[in-house]
Amino acid sequence: MKKALILLGCPESPSQTPIAIYAAQKLAKMDYEVTIASTPSAAKLLEVSDPDEYYVKNKMDIESCLDGLEQGQYDLLVGFVHKDAAASYFITFYHILQCEAIALVFEKDTKLIEEFENMVAENTDAKIVSVRAFHNPTPLRVKFDKVLKELQ
Amino acid sequence: MKKALILLGCPESPSQTPIAIYAAQKLAKMDYEVTIASTPSAAKLLEVSDPDEYYVKNKMDIESCLDGLEQGQYDLLVGFVHKDAAASYFITFYHILQCEAIALVFEKDTKLIEEFENMVAENTDAKIVSVRAFHNPTPLRVKFDKVLKELQ
Repeated sequence: MKKALILLGCPESPSQTPIAIYAAQKLAKMDYEVTIASTPSAAKLLEVSDPDEYYVKNKMDIESCLDGLEQGQYDLLVGFVHKDAAASYFITFYHILQCEAIALVFEKDTKLIEEFENMVAENTDAKIVSVRAFHNPTPLRVKFDKVLKELQ
Repeated sequence: MKKALILLGCPESPSQTPIAIYAAQKLAKMDYEVTIASTPSAAKLLEVSDPDEYYVKNKMDIESCLDGLEQGQYDLLVGFVHKDAAASYFITFYHILQCEAIALVFEKDTKLIEEFENMVAENTDAKIVSVRAFHNPTPLRVKFDKVLKELQ
């Protein structure tokens, strides 16, 4: 079974937790075993958002995950990039894992989107899904679905 | 079967969608048939957050819900109050339904919390669960659990 790792940083945007669950469900349907590695605050939101652990079965702290990380441990890396720290995590995980990767770049501010896109593009060969988003998860969901189809 | 209605306004806070799903799951376990009435943007976040409709079975547009609303249609009203518009919806639904009601007041800004608490307290006899919250859903979850125990 293929393994996917979803990275979640601090949950500034109301879209992050919903889209993370959506991504976990989608990847599970594509036969990935999905793990979400997140900061403590993102983990708390995941817990209340999925109290029966119906969508997210494997959760880890992002720092512990990084400590034990090795090349080839996952087949796909999906990272939410909406802050400098999140971009740095994504790039670090990418270079250790050396697997296929998707960066989801979302922000209210167009300049910041460009900045995060550039950070990811200059430092990785990841596919980049980028939208100006805060409340409305639909543009991000639609573009993410498209990129997933390219994977298959 | 008792019926509960959860009201969701615009999703400014990253906690709203996760806590709404948590509340729906909790109330369902207490044998309530749960309906969530929400604004279009909150509805989109609910959809991606629960793509299999495992937690939220009944969803309505908040305006359509209000149009058909009658006294006694629900036994419990739970409203998220973090904006003027959300407080107004809650008070309006409360006076039509005339049922037991819980207002969840959450905001980053302490002055706004006080303002929304006062609006709800002056206009209804609803139980008020109020916390300074944005990212972290735990304080709101803990206080909500306590108020639910008082219902039983």
